[in-house]
Amino acid sequence: MNINGQPHRTIWADPDNAQVIKIIDQRQLPHRLVIEDLHTVADFAAAIKEMHVRGAGLIGATAGFGMYCAGLHAPADGFLDSLQAAGERLIATRPTATNLAWAVHRQLAAVAGVTDATQGIAILYRTACEIADEDAEYCRRIGEHGLAIIRELSEKKNGEPVNILTHCNAGWLAFVDYGSATAPIYAAHREGIKVHVWVDETRPWLQGAKLTAWELKEEGVPHTLVADNTGGHLMQHGMVDMVIVGTDRTTKSGDVANKIGTYLKALAAKDNGVLFYVALPSSTFDWTISNGVKEIPIEQRGGEEICQVCGLTADGRNEKVLIAPAGTATANYGFDVTPARLITGLISERGICPASEAGIRELFPEKFV
Amino acid sequence: MNINGQPHRTIWADPDNAQVIKIIDQRQLPHRLVIEDLHTVADFAAAIKEMHVRGAGLIGATAGFGMYCAGLHAPADGFLDSLQAAGERLIATRPTATNLAWAVHRQLAAVAGVTDATQGIAILYRTACEIADEDAEYCRRIGEHGLAIIRELSEKKNGEPVNILTHCNAGWLAFVDYGSATAPIYAAHREGIKVHVWVDETRPWLQGAKLTAWELKEEGVPHTLVADNTGGHLMQHGMVDMVIVGTDRTTKSGDVANKIGTYLKALAAKDNGVLFYVALPSSTFDWTISNGVKEIPIEQRGGEEICQVCGLTADGRNEKVLIAPAGTATANYGFDVTPARLITGLISERGICPASEAGIRELFPEKFV
Repeated sequence: MNINGQPHRTIWADPDNAQVIKIIDQRQLPHRLVIEDLHTVADFAAAIKEMHVRGAGLIGATAGFGMYCAGLHAPADGFLDSLQAAGERLIATRPTATNLAWAVHRQLAAVAGVTDATQGIAILYRTACEIADEDAEYCRRIGEHGLAIIRELSEKKNGEPVNILTHCNAGWLAFVDYGSATAPIYAAHREGIKVHVWVDETRPWLQGAKLTAWELKEEGVPHTLVADNTGGHLMQHGMVDMVIVGTDRTTKSGDVANKIGTYLKALAAKDNGVLFYVALPSSTFDWTISNGVKEIPIEQRGGEEICQVCGLTADGRNEKVLIAPAGTATANYGFDVTPARLITGLISERGICPASEAGIRELFPEKFV
Repeated sequence: MNINGQPHRTIWADPDNAQVIKIIDQRQLPHRLVIEDLHTVADFAAAIKEMHVRGAGLIGATAGFGMYCAGLHAPADGFLDSLQAAGERLIATRPTATNLAWAVHRQLAAVAGVTDATQGIAILYRTACEIADEDAEYCRRIGEHGLAIIRELSEKKNGEPVNILTHCNAGWLAFVDYGSATAPIYAAHREGIKVHVWVDETRPWLQGAKLTAWELKEEGVPHTLVADNTGGHLMQHGMVDMVIVGTDRTTKSGDVANKIGTYLKALAAKDNGVLFYVALPSSTFDWTISNGVKEIPIEQRGGEEICQVCGLTADGRNEKVLIAPAGTATANYGFDVTPARLITGLISERGICPASEAGIRELFPEKFV
């Protein structure tokens, strides 16, 4: 999508030196656009763990390129063992995101049995590019499918702006391009349908305030930033037509693990008869589990994300400020699980389906054989 | 309650000069304890508007003392007209808090027909002290009534800590002493019952992180600070035994306007079978209205509270940092309304009742004649 009117992806190989992978260091947004070079598995692990990159699809694509760079630096003897170790290291960085393990295993499967390192590296590079291209293409299709819902709402409202609430950043910054939750919004906006987005700031990490608001600004989509506490009030007063969020892991019965707080918005949507959609490329399905609340491990992160807020000072420095008494105990759960019963539908690259095993089976029958 | 082991109230007359009223400037907490002197109506209006003081009971008590100070500086001819104008000025500072108008009207009623300024000032002072003392006493009784609920939960859990979630600050800092939501917690803690409090940080103003966490620390009550997004996850996993919140305005049918985000926690409590109590001195009832969502005006505050976060820098300065793209549009609703159907019960100074007109009528029959 656009930055200063120029199309970008979130991850790409340096056109002058394909051994170097480039990412946007998302910790610096929205105040500074910093492009970072990644070379080694350690670089990739740190970039994922410390959230230079984040978001379901982008974590997967980064892991894909990380495995390629692991191959570049692997010893010719023990090539596959070295890749195996690199994969484990990458998977350990973020326990909830299912795309991470999915991308690592796809790379390992692609080079299974390969003994020649040069050949292996070529395969790893090609597969990393495939993962990234597929991610972008799937998000583009999610946009097409979701566009139909927004178009219908717009027609019902006689062209008045369709108000869409989103939580966290399931935007193009969370994928390789387009985003999941934002793809239908961008598609509608580009088609000239009037949309307005309520952006949850998304504490503690503030992905909404820092990333989603920035994305929407760069694309020229009207939006309003709100505290996470606000969505219920907005829905009670008819100010939200639909909610679209992303997901980090989705069970085969349609339970959705997404950024902490998503469940609360789903409850409010249900209580007020507001449409609640989850947009996802199918790579975020975990086909092995059914009950999300019981079975999805929820990442716990450091307390400093709760006690400190990072932002720009009046004189232009990035600074962290302490917002609680020093030494306050904290709990920092990264995700919660929204039960399928609260979800109107899933918007995938293959189309829209009910959030239920039967609905998902219709679209992905090969996963249920 | 205690600060550094010494009992305090949130507002008091200077013992050496009763023409000066002292408050804790709550904007400076938790990092600095600053006592501020208030002299004129302008001081009081600014203190309420700019949230040096906040919270249902304390706003009322501050308005009470503000009317007294207005009397001190009122001209002998036109004494009552001057008070009337001061009252209007104070009421205009915060539109949702019902205690504000309640305290102003109580003062105006107390001096109705009084022509002698000296006599009027004496009445205003006495009434201001009565409002403050009553507020403290009512909160103490709320603590006694709520204690019974916590004691029962503790017994059911065989003495394991009772986990209580609270939103915003309905602590002693929001009243004159004890608090509303915190009063039962403090009563239980002082009785030796094991309690643990989940403190919602409460964006945008961070009353939980800055005030509730500080209060609980000073009283030695175990607590954990969480992002507002977290409560649903905690309730899904059995980590919350009860929710207690305060209220800024309560309808006669039991709908509750409280800090934005309260409604979302009430939905989560309902969905997970968690007790959801609202603690309130009866001064927060608005006996004139029934449907909270339709009838309670919701204050909208400035966007800078959304875009900027104020905290302590590593080198000990209070600083505001920008967390969103400069110029981002915001909406900052201060409160939302929790419908009575989501509330387990109301804990008032007269006892506990269902959140319904019938329940409230049982405790306050004189209001329904």
